[in-house]
Amino acid sequence: MSAEGLTGDLAAFVADAEPGAVDAETRAAARRAILDTVGVILAARGDSTMTTLARARAGYERVLAGDAPAPLTVSEFALGAGTAAHALDFDDVTDTLKGHPSVALVPALLAAAQGRAVSGAELLEAYALGYQVAVAVADGLDVKGHYKQGWHTTISIGIFGAAAAAARLLKLDSAATARAFGIAATAASGSRQNFGTMTKPLHAGLAAMLGLRAAHLAGAGFTADPGELEAPLGYYARLGQDLDADAVRATLTERWSLRQRGLNVKRYPSCYNTHRSADNILDLRADGLRAADVESVHIAIEPRGLGPLIHHRPTTGLQGKFSMEYVVAAALHDGELTLATFTDDRVQRPEVRALLPLVRAEEVATPPVGEPTFRHAYSVLTVRRTDGTEHVVRTDEPKGGARRPLTDEELHEKFAGCLSYAGYSGDEIAAVAGRIDGLDETADIAGTGLAQAVAEVLDARSKENAG
Amino acid sequence: MSAEGLTGDLAAFVADAEPGAVDAETRAAARRAILDTVGVILAARGDSTMTTLARARAGYERVLAGDAPAPLTVSEFALGAGTAAHALDFDDVTDTLKGHPSVALVPALLAAAQGRAVSGAELLEAYALGYQVAVAVADGLDVKGHYKQGWHTTISIGIFGAAAAAARLLKLDSAATARAFGIAATAASGSRQNFGTMTKPLHAGLAAMLGLRAAHLAGAGFTADPGELEAPLGYYARLGQDLDADAVRATLTERWSLRQRGLNVKRYPSCYNTHRSADNILDLRADGLRAADVESVHIAIEPRGLGPLIHHRPTTGLQGKFSMEYVVAAALHDGELTLATFTDDRVQRPEVRALLPLVRAEEVATPPVGEPTFRHAYSVLTVRRTDGTEHVVRTDEPKGGARRPLTDEELHEKFAGCLSYAGYSGDEIAAVAGRIDGLDETADIAGTGLAQAVAEVLDARSKENAG
Repeated sequence: MSAEGLTGDLAAFVADAEPGAVDAETRAAARRAILDTVGVILAARGDSTMTTLARARAGYERVLAGDAPAPLTVSEFALGAGTAAHALDFDDVTDTLKGHPSVALVPALLAAAQGRAVSGAELLEAYALGYQVAVAVADGLDVKGHYKQGWHTTISIGIFGAAAAAARLLKLDSAATARAFGIAATAASGSRQNFGTMTKPLHAGLAAMLGLRAAHLAGAGFTADPGELEAPLGYYARLGQDLDADAVRATLTERWSLRQRGLNVKRYPSCYNTHRSADNILDLRADGLRAADVESVHIAIEPRGLGPLIHHRPTTGLQGKFSMEYVVAAALHDGELTLATFTDDRVQRPEVRALLPLVRAEEVATPPVGEPTFRHAYSVLTVRRTDGTEHVVRTDEPKGGARRPLTDEELHEKFAGCLSYAGYSGDEIAAVAGRIDGLDETADIAGTGLAQAVAEVLDARSKENAG
Repeated sequence: MSAEGLTGDLAAFVADAEPGAVDAETRAAARRAILDTVGVILAARGDSTMTTLARARAGYERVLAGDAPAPLTVSEFALGAGTAAHALDFDDVTDTLKGHPSVALVPALLAAAQGRAVSGAELLEAYALGYQVAVAVADGLDVKGHYKQGWHTTISIGIFGAAAAAARLLKLDSAATARAFGIAATAASGSRQNFGTMTKPLHAGLAAMLGLRAAHLAGAGFTADPGELEAPLGYYARLGQDLDADAVRATLTERWSLRQRGLNVKRYPSCYNTHRSADNILDLRADGLRAADVESVHIAIEPRGLGPLIHHRPTTGLQGKFSMEYVVAAALHDGELTLATFTDDRVQRPEVRALLPLVRAEEVATPPVGEPTFRHAYSVLTVRRTDGTEHVVRTDEPKGGARRPLTDEELHEKFAGCLSYAGYSGDEIAAVAGRIDGLDETADIAGTGLAQAVAEVLDARSKENAG
């Protein structure tokens, strides 16, 4: 099939979808994604990434004439909310994207809804359409190769999702939406070399902000190439990728990708590659295993599964998130893995550090127990007890993974943990959750105050008070 | 030589340059670049790119809580000024960059100077350092191949110049400057497929804005990989380029690249590939040639010289800028090529359209007259008169090219033409020019009101009045 008109096809998918076309089950999936994303945004209140961003904003967001700081704009809200959403690395992930879809989508949506009457159903529908655009763009290229070359897909692909979601809420027609994709493509970027620094979450913020701007610019009549993605000097060619236009178009026919593919929701605020092993050790812990009984923990994991887990003796919370040894040791010691597990203080506890040498992980092509094949990844965890007995547990799909989703109750537990960590009271937590749970019946989301709640996270003053 | 520490070397070049190290001749070159850039910015007042941008800003720059438009911020000033600087395609170019350096540098500098006491000499010095960083980054890669793949170097490389210039004015140390380069690299982007649309000038605005933000973020303590450019997943690798670290470092030792390499200043507001031929026809016109005498005009130009000149029968001003036929016909008819030459009305004049079929251009590997070799490009223009006689003129370096610079008087003529086009009075033109001419002795550039003059171009209300 020809690549011709591919940008236009993506635009028509977004602009021409009939209101109500997205089914209730898919809208419910979008509602759960928004609950999870708002939770991790609010949890970032007071995080050093956010206080540093606020200091920088005092410089570049000052009013040109005079010394006054500028009031928070819709654009800067999108940047800040996106950065907050990814600051703790506790947000959702999709396998298709090899990245984080909601951290670009949700901030762009809340920002685009500002000053317009948008119902909750429209918001959920726009989320689903934006998600599907990002997935479709990803299906058009070799995501693994693209990621391997150093691109952070959360922005290099996610920016199209943000632009699509914003364009939908701004009610752009398909011609304007195609221009929005042309403008978004021009800003597709993001260096994976910056992983482990504050610039990683900034990528999510940039995707949300620049995607939002692309939609506003196109809506105002700003011009861009209407066939950017498929053109000889366009998106796929520029990134050195052979465009698979058929795959993009096939994805656009899925009803709906969000429901079919789902999201991997993180149950623990650490690298997703630790989650299977975390499930295993926490299950054993729940069955009565205690650190004092343990002689050694061996983990077999799929090839390349240890790639991001570079910190074997971490000393900071951020390093702890990327340490299989710390995640397993802390889970064994504490019986839980929460945001509080990944503070610098907690990582430095001598009683947990003493456990680190007991944990050894290695990549093994064939799982040592169970089926010799696996879908995407696996972990086989073997605990040898001081009494000579062994426990062996295997997990392929972690709890919260797209094919093993959290129950609504578990999702709300995570949400409550996030808000509680940031100092919200039980009443406040219930109020925010209730507003999100009711989104599908909300006539105008302005009344939910969701954007205002998120904006508080970006306000350095309230953060310093919260500290 | 090792690539290790290359980002740090670039940062040290900017942060550790002694005040006054940049010599007076180089500072004068920077002053001329600022004069030229401010001229083309002010000329864009009322241009459709700017009125459209202003409409879009009313959407994304609204205050989050409430309906009020936000006041103009430093960041949005950089975006708008950069876009204005490139809107008319009348700004300077360098061969090294295959792109436009000043459109990112000057807006970032004026923005970074806001709220700080910055002398004119510091401003000029920061321009020269920023220019050199952009040139050095470009020297580290295959610019032709990079450009050919579809990247618009004005942002994909120019963003480092903007970040460097801003970092210098913010007085960042070398560690913070290296982080600024890491953040800037993350946003390096820009699609050449968007040439011929408003998104092309937006690239300059994005380079200025994102480069400025990178400096502010780094200055506030935001973290990024300190070796982004040379790292395995960093800038050069991500773009699929073999890094030539020696070339980058060699360029940093030039004293100074701005003086050594210079800028091609555009004398006509059309594609630079038309300038040699425009010089030729205008010279003949000045010598008495008139349209009525002409039977045909033949142009021989270097291979690939016609690449961007895709409009043979243009109907809009923008198309006219990329039409060899129109540029030559209009020059022959009018005896000049000014901003007014490239309005839609002027392009559609029947008496000029009648001349288009007389003009024929072709790419010829060896110049048909003079030396068989040429440095970079050439044009041989042959006019056959109705009386059977022929004129043949060859130009290799157009007037305004780096090796054939405009005199100060010619530069001021261009500046006056730009401001006059935008409706400035003679007194106003003299006042702005005088402030830029005196920059080297200015104690604090806040007193010059330069940023305020530029900001007026971004204000939709004043533009509509000017219309």
